[in-house]
Amino acid sequence: MTFDEFGLIEHLCQQSPRQGPHVRVGIGDDAAVLTLAVGEEQLVTTDTLVAGVHFLPQTLSMEDVGYKAVVSSVSDVAAMGGEPRHVLLALAIPENAALLDLEALYEGVAEACREYRCTLVGGDVVHTAGPLVITSTVLGGIPAGTALLRSGAQQGDVVFVTGRVGGSGAGLALLVDPGPFAVVPEDEWVLQSFHRRPKAQVEAGLILRQEGAHSCNDITDGLASELNELATASRVRLRVDAQRVPVASAVRNFARARGQDPLIYAWYGGEDYQLVGTAPPLGFARALARCASVGIELTAIGRVEAGDGVVVEWEDGRQDVLAAKGYNHFPQKSEAEDRG
Amino acid sequence: MTFDEFGLIEHLCQQSPRQGPHVRVGIGDDAAVLTLAVGEEQLVTTDTLVAGVHFLPQTLSMEDVGYKAVVSSVSDVAAMGGEPRHVLLALAIPENAALLDLEALYEGVAEACREYRCTLVGGDVVHTAGPLVITSTVLGGIPAGTALLRSGAQQGDVVFVTGRVGGSGAGLALLVDPGPFAVVPEDEWVLQSFHRRPKAQVEAGLILRQEGAHSCNDITDGLASELNELATASRVRLRVDAQRVPVASAVRNFARARGQDPLIYAWYGGEDYQLVGTAPPLGFARALARCASVGIELTAIGRVEAGDGVVVEWEDGRQDVLAAKGYNHFPQKSEAEDRG
Repeated sequence: MTFDEFGLIEHLCQQSPRQGPHVRVGIGDDAAVLTLAVGEEQLVTTDTLVAGVHFLPQTLSMEDVGYKAVVSSVSDVAAMGGEPRHVLLALAIPENAALLDLEALYEGVAEACREYRCTLVGGDVVHTAGPLVITSTVLGGIPAGTALLRSGAQQGDVVFVTGRVGGSGAGLALLVDPGPFAVVPEDEWVLQSFHRRPKAQVEAGLILRQEGAHSCNDITDGLASELNELATASRVRLRVDAQRVPVASAVRNFARARGQDPLIYAWYGGEDYQLVGTAPPLGFARALARCASVGIELTAIGRVEAGDGVVVEWEDGRQDVLAAKGYNHFPQKSEAEDRG
Repeated sequence: MTFDEFGLIEHLCQQSPRQGPHVRVGIGDDAAVLTLAVGEEQLVTTDTLVAGVHFLPQTLSMEDVGYKAVVSSVSDVAAMGGEPRHVLLALAIPENAALLDLEALYEGVAEACREYRCTLVGGDVVHTAGPLVITSTVLGGIPAGTALLRSGAQQGDVVFVTGRVGGSGAGLALLVDPGPFAVVPEDEWVLQSFHRRPKAQVEAGLILRQEGAHSCNDITDGLASELNELATASRVRLRVDAQRVPVASAVRNFARARGQDPLIYAWYGGEDYQLVGTAPPLGFARALARCASVGIELTAIGRVEAGDGVVVEWEDGRQDVLAAKGYNHFPQKSEAEDRG
């Protein structure tokens, strides 16, 4: 594909919100100029998605790709307890990329920007001889000194998780290999949506921060990996009750039809973008009440104690150390890891 | 290549400054937490480099690639008159990437961070089946409401350029095709340095902003393209005196040995990362004096008048419209354009 250099980005970005609060100068100059309220700090995070590594044509449409590129970074801001505001999108596109595909991708970006009230303030588009590479950068604001870190977990805290987990991993498994297994149409739709349109937990993050949560992480690589990150960063042990881990019924049905333990999708499936963290019991109770009042599920799944690592207690009383097994989208591919 | 997911980034980033002013939480959590002084605004810009499109093994070493990735974004902050502070680096690396190459790349990143007093506060590393793709995001600070825009040029302004232009394009031409032409060793070294280690004009940008420049752009795509951007964004005409365009003597020697007009490298060669802009005459004079006192060249090359486009006046009195011809690193490849 060849294209008019300035015209393309102008064309692609026109669906996205480009002016908004906290934007003095938006897309189109050398740099965007953003404002912060007095007493706020700036959050910033970046994530890269690669065709063939993070998605395949049968797992995500181009709209889904654009949407998830933004959501993956918005989720990092949510995990700090912040308010996402600004998006920059850098694309390396194959020479033969179709304009329709790029338009679809940016439509997904615009959809996510509208949903999370973000403004598209910059980016870059270049060619590559390889597959599509998308890097999203999201900025947000947060009251100074209040960001939820991975390292804040304290003995006596409740370990919590928002929403239901494992849905994105089960959805991916279904999309990659529908197989001969019976999945009812409602479950199929739910599982695909979990994978294609995961929701960043911005409102939950705000509530948890305001109610004094001590630590938080978003679930990009599966609960096992995220719990271990919290334990390691905070130098504590997280003890989790396997029975309490909230797994969607569609995931349970899906796993059982395949003779699998539904929890494998919760532990090792990535991209749920739910939040996992720890809070003192009173703060957790307050956050639970507020979350319930706005329809957000918040579940206590364990507690923080002295020690290290993550221990799972099973229904029969057995205990296991839960290792931080990584998450690969497609088992034949290996994949590196983001670090905020 | 396979690698320990967390260990690699930790290892690669250890050469770079990771703590500094304006960093509350640095690399390693979901998002970085940055501070701004009261009365400041945040600048942010992102740029992507792709192996085979923006560089080849014979044009840039891996250190050069890392260095230029940071400088290309620092230069955008400089063009706004801001102070660069924070860097995020997202890499999509080929499966067979050598650790030594990645270490070299990050050494170049660290060198640029040290030189421009920036802190590495985040990033991502993922695999790709294609060539290396590097996206750098740089944040900076600037007093509220003072950013130098492309759209601020006014009739009567002086058109200025910092340093010497055309060096990076001539250096690239030399690296791609040394040919049978005589280049003295000093010139060869100078030209290669222009291309491999261009300098972002942070100090010049600060002076120009403080002395009341009206508009500014960094030279990433050649003077012809940048002058036209200023003219279009500001709805004015820029009239440039070709004789005054400051071209390094190494570029003049190089072009003459090839029977070329040295100015083609100034007009159409990219990645000089000098600044071009406009300022009222008194502000220009003050900036000129301050720049001279710190060893920065600043040259008046023309003036702003009513109209549109860019007009070049030649030595013999002829005038031409200077078109915004794009910049391709390697003529057989096409390349898209960044928009801040």
